[in-house]
Amino acid sequence: MIRHISLMTDFGLRDGYPGVMEAVIYKIAPQAKITNLTHLVPPQNIREGSLIWERSSLYFPDHSIHVGVVDPGVGTQRRAIAAQLGQQFFVCPDNGLISRALQRAEQQGAPARFIHLNRPQYWLPDVSNVFHGRDIFAPVAAHLASGVDLLDLGEPITDPHRLEIEVPQPIPGGWRGQITSIDHFGNAATNFTSEHLKGKQRPVFRIGAYQIRGLTRTFGDCPPGSTIALFDSDGTIAIAIVQGNAAQGLNINVGDPLDVIEEE
Amino acid sequence: MIRHISLMTDFGLRDGYPGVMEAVIYKIAPQAKITNLTHLVPPQNIREGSLIWERSSLYFPDHSIHVGVVDPGVGTQRRAIAAQLGQQFFVCPDNGLISRALQRAEQQGAPARFIHLNRPQYWLPDVSNVFHGRDIFAPVAAHLASGVDLLDLGEPITDPHRLEIEVPQPIPGGWRGQITSIDHFGNAATNFTSEHLKGKQRPVFRIGAYQIRGLTRTFGDCPPGSTIALFDSDGTIAIAIVQGNAAQGLNINVGDPLDVIEEE
Amino acid sequence: MIRHISLMTDFGLRDGYPGVMEAVIYKIAPQAKITNLTHLVPPQNIREGSLIWERSSLYFPDHSIHVGVVDPGVGTQRRAIAAQLGQQFFVCPDNGLISRALQRAEQQGAPARFIHLNRPQYWLPDVSNVFHGRDIFAPVAAHLASGVDLLDLGEPITDPHRLEIEVPQPIPGGWRGQITSIDHFGNAATNFTSEHLKGKQRPVFRIGAYQIRGLTRTFGDCPPGSTIALFDSDGTIAIAIVQGNAAQGLNINVGDPLDVIEEE
Repeated sequence: MIRHISLMTDFGLRDGYPGVMEAVIYKIAPQAKITNLTHLVPPQNIREGSLIWERSSLYFPDHSIHVGVVDPGVGTQRRAIAAQLGQQFFVCPDNGLISRALQRAEQQGAPARFIHLNRPQYWLPDVSNVFHGRDIFAPVAAHLASGVDLLDLGEPITDPHRLEIEVPQPIPGGWRGQITSIDHFGNAATNFTSEHLKGKQRPVFRIGAYQIRGLTRTFGDCPPGSTIALFDSDGTIAIAIVQGNAAQGLNINVGDPLDVIEEE
Repeated sequence: MIRHISLMTDFGLRDGYPGVMEAVIYKIAPQAKITNLTHLVPPQNIREGSLIWERSSLYFPDHSIHVGVVDPGVGTQRRAIAAQLGQQFFVCPDNGLISRALQRAEQQGAPARFIHLNRPQYWLPDVSNVFHGRDIFAPVAAHLASGVDLLDLGEPITDPHRLEIEVPQPIPGGWRGQITSIDHFGNAATNFTSEHLKGKQRPVFRIGAYQIRGLTRTFGDCPPGSTIALFDSDGTIAIAIVQGNAAQGLNINVGDPLDVIEEE
Repeated sequence: MIRHISLMTDFGLRDGYPGVMEAVIYKIAPQAKITNLTHLVPPQNIREGSLIWERSSLYFPDHSIHVGVVDPGVGTQRRAIAAQLGQQFFVCPDNGLISRALQRAEQQGAPARFIHLNRPQYWLPDVSNVFHGRDIFAPVAAHLASGVDLLDLGEPITDPHRLEIEVPQPIPGGWRGQITSIDHFGNAATNFTSEHLKGKQRPVFRIGAYQIRGLTRTFGDCPPGSTIALFDSDGTIAIAIVQGNAAQGLNINVGDPLDVIEEE
């Protein structure tokens, strides 16, 4: 069976470190197929990595193995873990990177199990204090891909670290949510879903000094330069400027609050 | 037969979207081999994407499938298409992205056929309005790679959208052309070819306030800092600064005119 | 046997040129597995490329083929070479790119042999003066991967070009070394190793106006914002700011001197 492995890190693309992780994997599991999901998670930004896994991992073939290394605690006492969520496998530091994929698995009733990676026979012989992506996470993923059972990689645990995930709170006439992420185009993701629009005939989004009236179906339905709200590809609502950059144009940052209310 | 698939988008490399397209492809066609041609086409820049396909696609193995997603009209009435040009296949929005590869196929007498992708059985079950790369183009490419015939993917059409492609125009004693692209090094591509140098003993290139006398064979033939004109790897003429950045140094932008004349 | 090929260039990720190299390789060696080590070597920076190969290449499976194209002399009389260092193969311009991997192979007593690539039957039929990555290096690597013997690719040579590699020099009470590289996080690599700490109870690092006392085991052992020295993943000492950017914060550049002495 071909096993697919995805790599997600904050290592950047200049220095060759993601390629070294590929090298380590291929040495153990020459038949693996590797997808570089991203290596441009903002440095140490566990929240952003967690979001990327949430919206990406379910599209992979069953039995895929997702390696995530956003790891400010590398070399400290933080645990290294592997997990199975439904039919997907994950290997990462136990710092909350898995939170959102885990939360979704739980919402869907998918089984979840976790292993503390404490068996050095599945690591490289020399483990540095600063590059567990190469020395622990990549070889563990490769052994999984080669047929080693998840349960053989370490001791079962039940308490993976979880990030606090903000959800919109009710305000008079609507909800207050947050900007959760800014993408390459400057589109701003929010934690509003269809649930927060229920019962609203004419929703209005307020963010800073700006108001956006109504939902747009897709970018091309409004002229370039229009500021719009629309359903993004993961079912949340995004704020965008057509053929422009909303984060810059509206001066939006991750964590900023925004409201949705009924138009008066 | 191994089928090669190339991906070209303007999605950037931060957010994991190209990896999701790989995931969707591998789920349908686990044996496919995927090349990430580029995901840094400038946002919505169909012209630049069209140039990249023109100079890249013919180097791929026969029967390769090129997926292109530069798609300001995603979710609107613009068509999704697949095409065969000679021995290469293409899957993209019908917005002109294929123009230059098509023009070259026609110049070479290679057969061309086009399909309007209107059969949802080859798409993901849920199609968002904003991410057809994941929901339509990737699965269609994967089905092609798995052996589905091009003609089964939709209805034949004969009128793909074409960009207007600028060609140099005669001026007294020479030609006026355009800067078509700026690359990673700051080298400026033009639409001049050997044809526009015919009969010139000592060509002079004029761009803005700058003059470049003669053609240089390659970068290393002139000292660092020299401003040169030379044949690029695709047979067009490029303007460059040896070990420098011509776009910045000469303040050149895509679309700027430049002339080639005979030295007086 | 699956052959792994790694690609390292300064071509950037926008223009599709690394993808064209993949295409050329797959056309000749469809079964090859390709790792994109990096395409963001700073333009024409042979030194940086040489460092990346030194710390990366040994992690690849035996018989891997490393293609490196940082090539300011492309199209001039500089030679193109292939090499075997221990169980790893290399294909690149003869400009010193291989220096550090070669030096390490020699230190380890691994056999080294070099070939001048002068047999055009292993190249693309048309060779441009500006893109030997596509026209010479990629096809040569693909022929190697397909089973062509190294010795068949050209004439043996024994004098590959070598960069001068700076090593720390003794100063009163310690050593003066150099910053060799700045990574994606702004961490600064040095040419200090454990050898330069021998006999020091309390080492102090001096760089510009800054002093760093002692070695830290890993990033997470100090609070965010701390300036630290620690062993990097390749066994050299790096200067870092925890969850910050040392290159910016300390105004460090490649080539800057730094000293290690015993605390007074």
